[in-house]
Order: sequence, then structure tokens, then C-alpha cells
Amino acid sequence: MSLNKCTNIFLMLLPTTTKINIIKEPTSSAWLTQALANLETILLDHSHCERKAAGVALNFLFRYPSYQDLVRQLTAIAREELEHFELVNQWLERLNIPLTALKPPPYGALLKEQVKPQEPERLLDSLLISALIEARSHERLGLLAQFCPDPELASFYRGLMACEARHYGIYWLLANHYFDKDRVRVRLDELAVVESQILAHLHHEPRIHS
Amino acid sequence: MSLNKCTNIFLMLLPTTTKINIIKEPTSSAWLTQALANLETILLDHSHCERKAAGVALNFLFRYPSYQDLVRQLTAIAREELEHFELVNQWLERLNIPLTALKPPPYGALLKEQVKPQEPERLLDSLLISALIEARSHERLGLLAQFCPDPELASFYRGLMACEARHYGIYWLLANHYFDKDRVRVRLDELAVVESQILAHLHHEPRIHS
Repeated sequence: MSLNKCTNIFLMLLPTTTKINIIKEPTSSAWLTQALANLETILLDHSHCERKAAGVALNFLFRYPSYQDLVRQLTAIAREELEHFELVNQWLERLNIPLTALKPPPYGALLKEQVKPQEPERLLDSLLISALIEARSHERLGLLAQFCPDPELASFYRGLMACEARHYGIYWLLANHYFDKDRVRVRLDELAVVESQILAHLHHEPRIHS
Repeated sequence: MSLNKCTNIFLMLLPTTTKINIIKEPTSSAWLTQALANLETILLDHSHCERKAAGVALNFLFRYPSYQDLVRQLTAIAREELEHFELVNQWLERLNIPLTALKPPPYGALLKEQVKPQEPERLLDSLLISALIEARSHERLGLLAQFCPDPELASFYRGLMACEARHYGIYWLLANHYFDKDRVRVRLDELAVVESQILAHLHHEPRIHS
């Protein structure tokens, strides 16, 4: 199974500038210190994150079953998140880490609170929040790829990180496909500020999004 | 993409007798007549069924995240259902059938009513109902494979049908893995009676489970 099959034509439309960053503030060194001191918990939380990411993509398919482009793109993402879920679980098995439940950090729930309840704002907000979460995952898996002391695990993170970048590009492109570009830019800016504010104080339990 | 990658070691444990049938009553000729007269609607409903099947498998992962064998088996099923969803959608696109919503038949909701709310009964009932739905899909896709006038579409149904058989085997095996075999047999028998009763009267709208 290749982690680098970045063959999505949709992505070719992604301007190179947006590949760099949609998040406002970079992750603090405090998070990296916490994560590196708790790599087993981070790996277990990563498994839960991949399952949740698949659930998020699938929820879009249930909520917008007639949106052809969204369905096509997010089916592919859901499949890929499940593949990553399997790969992380294989790592857990290899390291004898049991698949136990973990209390999630407040990150996801606080971001969800930002979603306006009425359509079409709900779709726009949901796509942009997914883009931000994937972008943050991309950044943090990149840090793990760079600083994880186990070279094999570091290489694993490097492969996943490339996919997270592609995923955030797809969510962002879908937002621009269904909504006016200026409106997307303004709302993304608002949500990105909130996203960085949530992470400004390190959550006490080590998590991908602590 | 092969529809016939039946390489699951878990399935090798499946006794050959259970491959034949877990459903009580065969599908009526009235369903087949209705389906063949409405192949485009059946294909659209099939797309919705594959998405729902992926959702069901994923819901098990969210509800039982620490059940290692269940997680492993149902992640693979969820991935495969999403692959089938993509394949059915490619057929819809090819035939210029738009991805529109369809009112589901009462089948799924009536079966869900049979699930006992408390654990561990809830898990047992959910696994067995999934096994029955997959078994019924296997039977009906088999009928479409046999009688569909378009040979290419018939061949497509033949490929999917083999996977549905494997899926129902996996749900049934998981039930037997987590519960006493006699208990599984008795409860499956009760639920299979209900499943056949629901389908005894043809639903007026053509669906995979009308």
C-alpha cells in the first residue's frame, strides 16, 4: 500500500501558494515536546483521528448525496482515511499498544461550535473546518516526521503527511467550487484565527490536536 | 480494481454450509419483475445502499473502538463498500443518471427496530441484522446478475454479489466470535423470520430491498 499515491487530478488545480499554509499560527515547541515524550499515546490518538476523519468525510456524503463533485472527492478521501486507520492500527499492534478509547481534546468540539447551523453556510463552514484540521494534521505529522527518534516511524509520518496536505487542498477546493472565492477567503480567515486560538494553550493530555 | 479479491483469511473459517443461506424465504418473482422494469432506479438505490453499508460498518468502529477483531474486519468492509459506492456511481455517470436522493424502503428502519437497546444484545443484534442485509443483497444482486438484459451490467452485479457473500460471512463470524454459538443460532433464526416477513409484501417503489 503506497502512502504517496497523489494522483488526484482535482489537486492539479491547487495553486502552489495554498500548499504552504492556511493556518494562522504554527504549532508551539511545547506541543512537540509533549508529543515526543508521549509517542505511544500520540499513535493511539492518531488512530482515533484517522477513524474520525473517515467519519467526517462519510458524513458529508450522507448530508449532500446529490453534490456530484463533493461525493466523488470525499469518497476517495474517506477510503484513504480508512487505509491510514488500518496502517496506524498495524503500528499499534506491532508496538503492543491496545486499541483503547481516549478522551478527545477540546479541539474538534470547539471548532464544530463555529459551524453555522443553516445552509449553505453550514456546508461552507464544514468544508473549511475540515480543511483547517487536515492542514494542522499535515503540519504536526510533519513535525513528528522531522523529530521522531524512530526512523521507521518518522518515515511513516512523512508518508501520511503528504496525504494530509492533499486532503486539505481538496476540502479547500470544494469550498471554492461551491462558493464565491472572496466569501471563502474571508470565512477561512475568521475560522483560521479561531483554530489557532484554540491551540494557543496546550491541552494537558498529549494528543495530535492538544 | 478487482471485485473478486476474496483474500480474507477470516473467511477461510466460514463453514461451507453457511455460504448457502441464512435468509428464510427467497425473493419473490414479483421483486425481480419490478426491478427489471426499473433498472435505472435500482442502480441509483444501489448507490445509496453501498454508501449506507459503508456507514453501518464505520458506525461499528465508532461504537466498539476497542474490539480489535471487529475493528480489523469492519475497516476492510467499510473500505470495500466505499469502493463499490464509487463503482456504482461510475455506472450512474456513464448512464447519465443524476445522483439524486431516493426515499428508502421501510426495510432498514423496520430491521433496526429489532435491535435490543442494551449491550451486549445490541452488538449481537446489530451484527446479525447486518449479516441478513448483506445476505439479502447477495441474493438479489445474484438475481440481477442472472436476469439483467445488459451483459456488462450483469457481469458487474456478478462481481459485487461475490463480495456481499463474503461480507455476510464476516458479520456472522464476528457474532460467533463474540457470542455463544447456540445463542447466535437462536437469535439469527428469530431475526431471519422478521427479515423475510418484511419483504413478504412488495414495497410499491422499486428498490434493492423493496
